[in-house]
Amino acid sequence: MEVNATNSPYARYKTIALKQIALTDGFWLRRQTINHQTSVRHAFRKLETSGNFNNLKLAAGTGEGQYREPLFMDSDIYKWLEAVSYSLITRPDPELAAMADEAIALLAAAQQEDGYLNSYFQVMEPNKKWTELAMGHELYCAGHLIEAAVAHHRATGQTKLLDIACRFADHIDGRFGPDKGDAVPGHPEIELALVELHRETDEPRYLALAGFFIDQRGHGKMIGRTPFENDYHQNRVPVRETDVVEGHAVRQLYLTAGIADIYLETGEQALLDTLQRQWHDMTAHKMHITAGFGARHEGEAFGQSYELPSDRCYCETCAAIANMMWNWRMLLITGEARYADLLERSLYNGFLSGISLDGQRYFYVNPLLSRGGIERPEWYGCACCPPNVMRQIAMLAGYVATTNAAGLQVHQYIATNIEATLHNEQPIKVQLETDYPWDGQVTLTIAETDGSPWELALRIPGWCHEATLHVGDDVTDVSAQRGGYAQTRRTWQAGDVVQLKLVMQPRFIEPNPRIDAVRGSLAIERGPLVYCLEAVDQPADVNLPDVRIDPTAPLHAQWREDMLEGVVVIEAQGTVMDMRRWQSALYRPLTAESLPQQVIKLTAVPYYAWANRGPGQMRVWIAK
Amino acid sequence: MEVNATNSPYARYKTIALKQIALTDGFWLRRQTINHQTSVRHAFRKLETSGNFNNLKLAAGTGEGQYREPLFMDSDIYKWLEAVSYSLITRPDPELAAMADEAIALLAAAQQEDGYLNSYFQVMEPNKKWTELAMGHELYCAGHLIEAAVAHHRATGQTKLLDIACRFADHIDGRFGPDKGDAVPGHPEIELALVELHRETDEPRYLALAGFFIDQRGHGKMIGRTPFENDYHQNRVPVRETDVVEGHAVRQLYLTAGIADIYLETGEQALLDTLQRQWHDMTAHKMHITAGFGARHEGEAFGQSYELPSDRCYCETCAAIANMMWNWRMLLITGEARYADLLERSLYNGFLSGISLDGQRYFYVNPLLSRGGIERPEWYGCACCPPNVMRQIAMLAGYVATTNAAGLQVHQYIATNIEATLHNEQPIKVQLETDYPWDGQVTLTIAETDGSPWELALRIPGWCHEATLHVGDDVTDVSAQRGGYAQTRRTWQAGDVVQLKLVMQPRFIEPNPRIDAVRGSLAIERGPLVYCLEAVDQPADVNLPDVRIDPTAPLHAQWREDMLEGVVVIEAQGTVMDMRRWQSALYRPLTAESLPQQVIKLTAVPYYAWANRGPGQMRVWIAK
Repeated sequence: MEVNATNSPYARYKTIALKQIALTDGFWLRRQTINHQTSVRHAFRKLETSGNFNNLKLAAGTGEGQYREPLFMDSDIYKWLEAVSYSLITRPDPELAAMADEAIALLAAAQQEDGYLNSYFQVMEPNKKWTELAMGHELYCAGHLIEAAVAHHRATGQTKLLDIACRFADHIDGRFGPDKGDAVPGHPEIELALVELHRETDEPRYLALAGFFIDQRGHGKMIGRTPFENDYHQNRVPVRETDVVEGHAVRQLYLTAGIADIYLETGEQALLDTLQRQWHDMTAHKMHITAGFGARHEGEAFGQSYELPSDRCYCETCAAIANMMWNWRMLLITGEARYADLLERSLYNGFLSGISLDGQRYFYVNPLLSRGGIERPEWYGCACCPPNVMRQIAMLAGYVATTNAAGLQVHQYIATNIEATLHNEQPIKVQLETDYPWDGQVTLTIAETDGSPWELALRIPGWCHEATLHVGDDVTDVSAQRGGYAQTRRTWQAGDVVQLKLVMQPRFIEPNPRIDAVRGSLAIERGPLVYCLEAVDQPADVNLPDVRIDPTAPLHAQWREDMLEGVVVIEAQGTVMDMRRWQSALYRPLTAESLPQQVIKLTAVPYYAWANRGPGQMRVWIAK
Repeated sequence: MEVNATNSPYARYKTIALKQIALTDGFWLRRQTINHQTSVRHAFRKLETSGNFNNLKLAAGTGEGQYREPLFMDSDIYKWLEAVSYSLITRPDPELAAMADEAIALLAAAQQEDGYLNSYFQVMEPNKKWTELAMGHELYCAGHLIEAAVAHHRATGQTKLLDIACRFADHIDGRFGPDKGDAVPGHPEIELALVELHRETDEPRYLALAGFFIDQRGHGKMIGRTPFENDYHQNRVPVRETDVVEGHAVRQLYLTAGIADIYLETGEQALLDTLQRQWHDMTAHKMHITAGFGARHEGEAFGQSYELPSDRCYCETCAAIANMMWNWRMLLITGEARYADLLERSLYNGFLSGISLDGQRYFYVNPLLSRGGIERPEWYGCACCPPNVMRQIAMLAGYVATTNAAGLQVHQYIATNIEATLHNEQPIKVQLETDYPWDGQVTLTIAETDGSPWELALRIPGWCHEATLHVGDDVTDVSAQRGGYAQTRRTWQAGDVVQLKLVMQPRFIEPNPRIDAVRGSLAIERGPLVYCLEAVDQPADVNLPDVRIDPTAPLHAQWREDMLEGVVVIEAQGTVMDMRRWQSALYRPLTAESLPQQVIKLTAVPYYAWANRGPGQMRVWIAK
């Protein structure tokens, strides 16, 4: 998940290693602390009781009982190991380290002599390795192993997991490639993993293999018994001819992230052109306001353009994560703030809704409307999302800032201590303080610098129409930089303070008129947050579908320490319709009558925090 | 499918046998002629090329090659045999009769000594008979065999297919029942079939077995390896405690039809109470305007209340058929016109959309919105719908009229010659002439009667707000009978003419405000028909999602001989929005600006006729 693009030749921005940037306070530190103290431990127990570890023991010959499916259970372990590794960078923890070592020892024991490692095929179908590429998930699991191994190596300096990953990668490289064997990976993930392994090991074979895998797509190749469904599997046309995002959303977005990684190393323009066409298609046609992706339960898939239902959308938590991964790479490639904007939208909305406030319950599917009855489970039979959330929160600091030849760029306003080495080898330290996303004031203190000038670039989010920058006594209106960066180049002194003030007014959002599902409705946003109505916050006995919001009445933001671990709520004015005249009818001849309505106060809470207080009704889009 | 409720003790209305009522002219005769001349022959070829017949040959030991799934392929043959049987009643056709005989001979050859008959289990899993009740479809196929056999017996007087069905029914009766074996049929159909077999044979065991099957539901029984999904399979609660329709829509509606059949014979009030609760739930919460059912592709299932999307609804053709079957039985039970109203709504809309005008292409799924790209296939891998359409069209005359102690009731305005025997054994003949659904004038001529008085009851459809009845020189405003029956009791003379004039004005329909999917939109109806816009009928290059309809402008109906084999189109006024100001945005802060709009003329066509002129855009609900 972490991208080490410090040496990538086609990175406009260079990444900052997780060892150099740490969360210090506020909104995300709280979430990361829960992640560290609660979630990854909760997950360890679940990996035990769900059978993931026992599957590996069965592969090693030491397990007991039945293999437990789904067949990609190994990947849950890998994502969890990746989360633990990131966590250990900033939070040494012998107990967690021992848990990780236990898992790594299992992997070492399970790995075959020839490097192959996949508990399902080893235990259940030893004669069918590499014959079920469409749905077998072998390369997908291998990719997650590699990501975990790279993270573990970076965190601990140890090579024991990296060695396992390299042996498996070498096995794969011996099996697939020109003059070796065809392979369309049925679930992308291996591509970005191999590129990162290449970055970690300097082994060019891994990069070449990633390129081979993407080149295989769209040529009608069918490897194994189970056919590829061409749109579901992103196998309809060759990668470089692709214009749209389609099919299984997580597959699609892991693939685009992998292609972006390959571009970062190769600079092949056709790949970037493809990614930009796909990004346009996704953001112009196929994205929920939460930056959740996947309109359909069937196939966990993107729908048609403007097919964006609130109730039956999928918006899988993993798809929001994949979107952040892709957009982070697009930002590194292009330097354009729109990618950081979209990353932010997923981060605070479609992603963060995937975990409960207590860090022990999850959403796989993140609808924008609940008619009631939706609750967060503690785990899933198909548990791809929970450990994915954990690794994302554990490495979040990696998305905060980058460097380039000019200086330092800050993309996400998260309280952190940033250490970076600028182009001239100059080491700098910057302290970022903020109460974001509740407050738009961001204070950056230059803690360490040398005497040469460099540029500090601060993203002015697309949602922000009024922004000022305070550098010493200079105050600049930077509203015009909305959707870009406010850049200040000077010779900084230790102790210099820069203040960015992003005015956060609650706002009504209207949908494109082509979106049938939310016609005649409005959403509420403030700062990076999308809001929703939960029934529990409204006057008693109000049926949310009967509520109408008044767009002419003002919205009021209010900090509520007592709610949802502290949130800014938005108060609005609305009405509730008296539906009795409709009796039991679903349809009736058009009449001019308007229904009796009663004025009520509405209270909206951040979408990410929904479903933490029972399974009541919820709506992001409110009819006006 | 045909119900012989002439002796059912709890039928308020008695059915008229298909031998006594025949289509004579107009809208439905045309469709039935195509059904007879084209569709059932087209189906025979498809049953050959798709492997259905060969599956039976494999079971008989005379087939070659592979078994072809899905595992319920036999049921396609049975529905086709039922269609052919009904067709032969009014249209003697040696060629078709020979096709049917060929199929029956195959069935006779395939049936086991012990009466068992299911090609899939005989050929593919002979040791797993009756072990996969959740998804194995054995009882479902058996039910369709029985329905076909009863129809064939009634059409031809021959017993060869009925004997096969009775042997299988006896086999099933020997296998399941109190002290024999549990069984929750995974796909209802056997229940209504057994009741009809009981009516045809006077064998009470068949009725008892149907009752046994419905009593088994909702007690947590799990028969076979595949678990029942309780809501999908209508197995969540016992039948008599059910309040809602849920799960797989066709399963649910075949089940309610079967329960209604059991009520018709037993009169058990708890069953009728259940059915009325479910009917209320369905019509108040879970029905598309086309009387299509099933909001979700996942599980081909009912959704939650008010979850009624236009694009991703399922509205399976078979579900509309099942709805007609259920509502016909509810009408017989209660005598209430609302059931005939709902039958009519499915018939002209959600059902009839399932077949092309040429009778050779089909829809399995019937959405109310197409963004383009939807075409009718000639057949389906899972071909449950096409032969179901055929049997429905072939027996349609059976839904036209009934008798009771008072006289004759006419429920559907379809040009027919009706022969009936009234309660006093008095034979009557009535000729019904009409251009319905294009024109609301219905002329009934008493062709034969005796001298005793009887009552003629004519349904005044729920959609009709202005109706007059002309009996001789008497003219009566019968608008107040809307949703009921206009009754005329007198001593009729041969040659008496009754005219019913139902004023058909095109009308705008508004949806219940709780339906998110169509908020801010209107539909157009005229008479029993729901209309839609197809792009091909609008000004060139108009993008249908950008069209807005003007509810203040009048609607004009116009007969168009040249379109779609002759239809009444509705002309409306609308606008097309210039969307350029939205650029590529999906969401934006609310503005007061309204988009530039250009006035255009809109032309709506009957929904049933859509997708006969290419895969263009289509909308039933049009934003206002």
